[in-house]
Amino acid sequence: MPGFGDLGFSQVDLGRLERRGFPEAVYSEGKSPEDVAAIVRVLVEKNGVALATRASQLQYEKVRELSPDARFETVARCIVVERRPLPKLPGRVAVVSAGTTDKPVVEEARVTLELFGNSVEMIPDVGVAGIHRTLAAKERIDLCSIVIVVAGMEGALPSVIAGLVSKPVIAVPTSVGYGASFGGIAALLGMLNSCAGGVTVVNIDNGFGAGYAASLINREIALARKSPDAA
Amino acid sequence: MPGFGDLGFSQVDLGRLERRGFPEAVYSEGKSPEDVAAIVRVLVEKNGVALATRASQLQYEKVRELSPDARFETVARCIVVERRPLPKLPGRVAVVSAGTTDKPVVEEARVTLELFGNSVEMIPDVGVAGIHRTLAAKERIDLCSIVIVVAGMEGALPSVIAGLVSKPVIAVPTSVGYGASFGGIAALLGMLNSCAGGVTVVNIDNGFGAGYAASLINREIALARKSPDAA
Amino acid sequence: MPGFGDLGFSQVDLGRLERRGFPEAVYSEGKSPEDVAAIVRVLVEKNGVALATRASQLQYEKVRELSPDARFETVARCIVVERRPLPKLPGRVAVVSAGTTDKPVVEEARVTLELFGNSVEMIPDVGVAGIHRTLAAKERIDLCSIVIVVAGMEGALPSVIAGLVSKPVIAVPTSVGYGASFGGIAALLGMLNSCAGGVTVVNIDNGFGAGYAASLINREIALARKSPDAA
Amino acid sequence: MPGFGDLGFSQVDLGRLERRGFPEAVYSEGKSPEDVAAIVRVLVEKNGVALATRASQLQYEKVRELSPDARFETVARCIVVERRPLPKLPGRVAVVSAGTTDKPVVEEARVTLELFGNSVEMIPDVGVAGIHRTLAAKERIDLCSIVIVVAGMEGALPSVIAGLVSKPVIAVPTSVGYGASFGGIAALLGMLNSCAGGVTVVNIDNGFGAGYAASLINREIALARKSPDAA
Amino acid sequence: MPGFGDLGFSQVDLGRLERRGFPEAVYSEGKSPEDVAAIVRVLVEKNGVALATRASQLQYEKVRELSPDARFETVARCIVVERRPLPKLPGRVAVVSAGTTDKPVVEEARVTLELFGNSVEMIPDVGVAGIHRTLAAKERIDLCSIVIVVAGMEGALPSVIAGLVSKPVIAVPTSVGYGASFGGIAALLGMLNSCAGGVTVVNIDNGFGAGYAASLINREIALARKSPDAA
Amino acid sequence: MPGFGDLGFSQVDLGRLERRGFPEAVYSEGKSPEDVAAIVRVLVEKNGVALATRASQLQYEKVRELSPDARFETVARCIVVERRPLPKLPGRVAVVSAGTTDKPVVEEARVTLELFGNSVEMIPDVGVAGIHRTLAAKERIDLCSIVIVVAGMEGALPSVIAGLVSKPVIAVPTSVGYGASFGGIAALLGMLNSCAGGVTVVNIDNGFGAGYAASLINREIALARKSPDAA
Amino acid sequence: MPGFGDLGFSQVDLGRLERRGFPEAVYSEGKSPEDVAAIVRVLVEKNGVALATRASQLQYEKVRELSPDARFETVARCIVVERRPLPKLPGRVAVVSAGTTDKPVVEEARVTLELFGNSVEMIPDVGVAGIHRTLAAKERIDLCSIVIVVAGMEGALPSVIAGLVSKPVIAVPTSVGYGASFGGIAALLGMLNSCAGGVTVVNIDNGFGAGYAASLINREIALARKSPDAA
Amino acid sequence: MPGFGDLGFSQVDLGRLERRGFPEAVYSEGKSPEDVAAIVRVLVEKNGVALATRASQLQYEKVRELSPDARFETVARCIVVERRPLPKLPGRVAVVSAGTTDKPVVEEARVTLELFGNSVEMIPDVGVAGIHRTLAAKERIDLCSIVIVVAGMEGALPSVIAGLVSKPVIAVPTSVGYGASFGGIAALLGMLNSCAGGVTVVNIDNGFGAGYAASLINREIALARKSPDAA
Repeated sequence: MPGFGDLGFSQVDLGRLERRGFPEAVYSEGKSPEDVAAIVRVLVEKNGVALATRASQLQYEKVRELSPDARFETVARCIVVERRPLPKLPGRVAVVSAGTTDKPVVEEARVTLELFGNSVEMIPDVGVAGIHRTLAAKERIDLCSIVIVVAGMEGALPSVIAGLVSKPVIAVPTSVGYGASFGGIAALLGMLNSCAGGVTVVNIDNGFGAGYAASLINREIALARKSPDAA
Repeated sequence: MPGFGDLGFSQVDLGRLERRGFPEAVYSEGKSPEDVAAIVRVLVEKNGVALATRASQLQYEKVRELSPDARFETVARCIVVERRPLPKLPGRVAVVSAGTTDKPVVEEARVTLELFGNSVEMIPDVGVAGIHRTLAAKERIDLCSIVIVVAGMEGALPSVIAGLVSKPVIAVPTSVGYGASFGGIAALLGMLNSCAGGVTVVNIDNGFGAGYAASLINREIALARKSPDAA
Repeated sequence: MPGFGDLGFSQVDLGRLERRGFPEAVYSEGKSPEDVAAIVRVLVEKNGVALATRASQLQYEKVRELSPDARFETVARCIVVERRPLPKLPGRVAVVSAGTTDKPVVEEARVTLELFGNSVEMIPDVGVAGIHRTLAAKERIDLCSIVIVVAGMEGALPSVIAGLVSKPVIAVPTSVGYGASFGGIAALLGMLNSCAGGVTVVNIDNGFGAGYAASLINREIALARKSPDAA
Repeated sequence: MPGFGDLGFSQVDLGRLERRGFPEAVYSEGKSPEDVAAIVRVLVEKNGVALATRASQLQYEKVRELSPDARFETVARCIVVERRPLPKLPGRVAVVSAGTTDKPVVEEARVTLELFGNSVEMIPDVGVAGIHRTLAAKERIDLCSIVIVVAGMEGALPSVIAGLVSKPVIAVPTSVGYGASFGGIAALLGMLNSCAGGVTVVNIDNGFGAGYAASLINREIALARKSPDAA
Repeated sequence: MPGFGDLGFSQVDLGRLERRGFPEAVYSEGKSPEDVAAIVRVLVEKNGVALATRASQLQYEKVRELSPDARFETVARCIVVERRPLPKLPGRVAVVSAGTTDKPVVEEARVTLELFGNSVEMIPDVGVAGIHRTLAAKERIDLCSIVIVVAGMEGALPSVIAGLVSKPVIAVPTSVGYGASFGGIAALLGMLNSCAGGVTVVNIDNGFGAGYAASLINREIALARKSPDAA
Repeated sequence: MPGFGDLGFSQVDLGRLERRGFPEAVYSEGKSPEDVAAIVRVLVEKNGVALATRASQLQYEKVRELSPDARFETVARCIVVERRPLPKLPGRVAVVSAGTTDKPVVEEARVTLELFGNSVEMIPDVGVAGIHRTLAAKERIDLCSIVIVVAGMEGALPSVIAGLVSKPVIAVPTSVGYGASFGGIAALLGMLNSCAGGVTVVNIDNGFGAGYAASLINREIALARKSPDAA
Repeated sequence: MPGFGDLGFSQVDLGRLERRGFPEAVYSEGKSPEDVAAIVRVLVEKNGVALATRASQLQYEKVRELSPDARFETVARCIVVERRPLPKLPGRVAVVSAGTTDKPVVEEARVTLELFGNSVEMIPDVGVAGIHRTLAAKERIDLCSIVIVVAGMEGALPSVIAGLVSKPVIAVPTSVGYGASFGGIAALLGMLNSCAGGVTVVNIDNGFGAGYAASLINREIALARKSPDAA
Repeated sequence: MPGFGDLGFSQVDLGRLERRGFPEAVYSEGKSPEDVAAIVRVLVEKNGVALATRASQLQYEKVRELSPDARFETVARCIVVERRPLPKLPGRVAVVSAGTTDKPVVEEARVTLELFGNSVEMIPDVGVAGIHRTLAAKERIDLCSIVIVVAGMEGALPSVIAGLVSKPVIAVPTSVGYGASFGGIAALLGMLNSCAGGVTVVNIDNGFGAGYAASLINREIALARKSPDAA
């Protein structure tokens, strides 16, 4: 197995796109702007695209010095370079969220999904306290292949959605809430204990991880379309 | 303030019925059968009724020796003596639950409610994974004054119910679940963080407490009926 | 079920006043001032009133641009618009608190209660370390229909109050304290484990939730007054 | 939305197969054998198959009285009735596990997967302390569409597997371990924090949930095969 | 510093009586009956008294073989040998408790106190839900030098007692409770966060530790009586 | 029971000095400077002394406007007014600490002790990693009546000290440490589980509480000196 | 990398002795007696020795059927086969423990150490409450190369030992204790936060892990003896 | 035992170099710059070297006033004075890390190791998501005597490394991560539960502790080289 770029301080995993179908992303929190910029450049050179999550404005500016075509998704806090776009995937991914405060996590998922070639259906602010809003989302979800459900506080939305549709559900707990929400623990536990079978969960506020998981599924669906039953 | 019966090992609070509207109950776990029996007798003599929660068959048998009219509610694990029934309350209390496994807690609530004079509307097994079951409960809840919602696992049911109706909602988390449900913590946190305003919560598996709280509310409603607006 | 205002980023639940008796409130933390202002305007237009909790001065200023009759309750951190007041409720709600440091939570409860039509009886600083202060509060609580008890640290006040009176008790743990108070967990656990039957609990620092729950109860009491026993 | 069978104590969700693609399963822990048997019978009548998880020998015997073709999967603790098998799905699901002690969870996943129509590739005991065993599994996983990874203790296996392959990874933490494994919390946290993108997680010991989630994905893949790119 | 008896498997601290004023006690849980018996014998020979806490009937029987004058305090689960009693201390220690279920912990404190030479004033079952019972205890506590307060559930009793009297208060949380009492954590946190100044706390269910601490204080008081102000 | 000063927002407990032997202290965190100043003034007028803990420079300045003789103990973060000093107590209190970083907590204990009339013996920086420093402290502790032991990190110092001396030991865990010290939890648990009998514990960083508890003990010792054995 | 024995249900890591210097051990908890016996036989055939930890009497009996020279270390709960002993290591390992209740963990460490070729120095029951016992151990520890320190409750012993000697210290927290010891968490946190530099820690009750770590160190020391400075 | 420098506020443990082989280090967090400077000076005078960890730029500047030859390791946040270097140790220590964000902890370990006389082999950024990078590190680790493994998130790296090599492994969890990493708890638990035998663990982010432990081991190896087998 060949393939990692030795930057001295970092061994960039250049083979990941080939092995996993999608390239390595840069988790920027705690890294110096210089390090982020250097890693992004190496990734772009190899893969044609790069994604740095949890990035700051300062890191973005350093990245742009080396990669002038980088853009900054402010709400998502993502640096994106998309020089040679990844192949488009046929399946559509719904991103459903409980409240407007979940937006940064929703956006991180959307940016990841789009960079990785997915079409995205955004369905915001359909929390279960107004269940008619939730029910109204069913039709649009049914047209997608996968659904990501983002919610904070008690994190009940994935259970209701999963009970309504036949799609794989990836739940993302957010740190929205206060007091006994404990920075997202309440939502995380709620989702792990969902009474609706088949809900899977990622880390608190991990919009990137949900987008990555959905992309892996969507890629399998794309492969299946290319090798139909008749084959 | 007068009023407690000195049994040596116990100071039975005989004034509680007068002060609070409902009599003291006996929390039986960890008490010897003899102690439970002695306390129950004193309470019955004073108040005409007695309730011992979390009781065992053994404790019940000892109680029956001193109070032959005691009955044992097996699923609820409650010993009940109802020699001179408490006054009936006009309001109806709905007891809604998410799954059949919540039955012991549901029953503890029902036994408490009925002993304290409430009419009870039982609506079991309407968990949110089959949301049409939940929605179908709305009509019956609307006919009640108060609704107790019992759920384990992610504890999402109170949020959905509270969003549907205009009644006070008392949520009871249960220890139903496994793994990251942590004996009911997931449900408890879910209920405390409900995105639907006005949900109040009692301790895990505390059907008695929910029944008590509903009775206090129902008693206020009963008083209001006796002093109408015209007054 | 009709009724939600689509702002694109937000689906404002305009039917909530009708369904639940009280309108949706805006949880402002983490929302942009623009979003808060837009949601408040839609709510006022529909309901005549609006409440935004956990709001900042900055959010308030933006709200006032669109809704010039908005006022800011500084200690409660609430934005209030009361263009067409909600109907007054006959029952009185006591708000009892343990210490002066609990004031922001107490105020959030008071603002909610008053906006929702309740009369409020404020009984501050009667913590159990000076139990004579606590006992002195009994007479005033007895004149109310419901009592909200706010306390931090060990959260013992609801147990003592609930043992003294026959009113429904809603306990609000606050994050007042340090060290092993763990941001309000000690008070929360204390209240959930109250040895006085019938205490119900809301989230840490959730003055709004307590006010909402009390309003739901008070509304049932109001309805009862309108349909007296004779009926 | 039609569809639930009212057993009085239980509202069996008979529409779930239609809505979600797979039927409701019975979580048996804490239910009486009679209740489990009654629910299983209703489900079999409607759906042709039934699955009861976390079941005991006693519950099985009661089920067999009403459904004589039920079988008991001892290690998985599952009761299975498969009168009219569900349609076979083309994709293969790998079930990789870290140690032999994880067997009950592995088996629960396998039983669920097979009942729901999946082919299963079992790859046991390839924990990371002998990384050559882990690496040797890659080739067999590459032939599958989805991989379920089951591990206790530090739960490191999903990270390594996810870094090696391009398939969707569903991680199942188990309660295998002692001391600071805290009944599976260590493995759960490890999996939620995986440094390999796209790992999703289910509850501790939740082999059923992982099998359900994989089936939902596999069903989407099956649908895609039926509607190839040309379409 | 001289003094420890080498039993091979155990180094009995024979100098502790001299250094600390009271002898070493044997924590019996997890020790074999033979080991407990051997250690008790060595301690009795050296000190004239011995105390083994958390002991079983089986351990007691083994102890009695070597020390026939041992007695077993069943409720306290303590083995006591008092061959040459320790000197009597003049001060009186109050042991106040919230409920009858706290009895085993109360008894462990009493047995320790009496063996160590203190007079004990037992004041059981004066929990704060019946605050008049609590207030009625004040007079008897005022006649003591130190007060131990034992309570489970929310652990509010020490705060109320400490606010009433001028005596040092040692609080003992008990594991009495269920659900969110978490085996005594709620009571422990409540006591550590007491709003009444000067409450000190020992481990959950640690009646022995409270008795020991009170004895150390009482011993200082006894020394003071022997060296009055005039001296 | 007479005695509390109604400031509207606050019910100052003016009877506490009489009931408890020491006056109420003001916990300043979260209070406005104006409130702190008003409460301090009322307390000084009644009691001649006042203590405000966890105070800021800003609060101090406001206090000085109303009480010009107030002084600020910077390291201890305490505002002290000592117009008519409390009576001196004969016993000496040792304040032993593990490291120099514990200084703020040590100082809070010292300020409390001195205001309440105790003589203080300061023994800093004798942590158990250099056990000879710890052993060297024994002689000075033996001359005191009570010992307060302050330590962060693993909180082992109280166990060693308690094993060396015959004095009552009050342990104060501090938030000194990082990582798995969890803001003082490690030290708190260490002290609650001390293998040396008779250690009592106060809240994390609660130097005031330790000083208060020691003062209560010292006051009992003082009373004993006035009523010698001969009496 | 060659080397694992495929038992179908288990991939026994036969190369571990070669790779790591010591053979794989069998963690027996949760495995069927048949599985344990089969794995042990494969390991003995390959390596000449085998160790199964956390084993039951039943598992031992099954093992003995296949490996008649197996012996059962009852207190340590270990099954040991030592057909072709591993090479002896020159360095001596001290196993110091705080109390006699820690014996099972101490024994697991001893059995591991001896099987892996180490000489062991047992120093039991020298807890810090009798610090003279602790100090008296120094001389014997100084003659060893490595010291394992086993303690429950507050886990203070490693800090004191590490401050006294110049040897590597491996700390083993045990689950000895009750209440706020939380099954060994208090001791674990205490050891992780040791104020004495250089203490490393293994899992709660993990005597095997400590013995393994010490063996790895001792093996490096043995290698160094074979390649002296002069070389 | 002689030897501590009394600075009034601090008892500097000057005998530690002699007793333990390495000098006391100064934990700077929470200490005033003046105190750090004074302690460093005393240590340098006695030992010729000094190390202050978790130091700020401000503390460094104060130290340099008294010790002009001090240097500041910015990334490691360490103040180092090396006037009379400690003796060099022959063994090499590998410092392996999972990601570039772990750099501050890695650097603290390196600075400690080098000051204490060890040679260091730096192997950064070889996390398990790119397992080929991890495997590529084996050869370099095999040339060392001890390996320190630094990782955040799920902390899986030590398990994989320990399974590959025969060297003692010291694992350092870092606080790198978010959400359910809980400031390093996930990594800490992962390492404590490693399925690879013999991994020992230090506190979260404790690079110093790992360096100290490795130095103690390396010193034993150095001693062994001086007393070869022949002796």
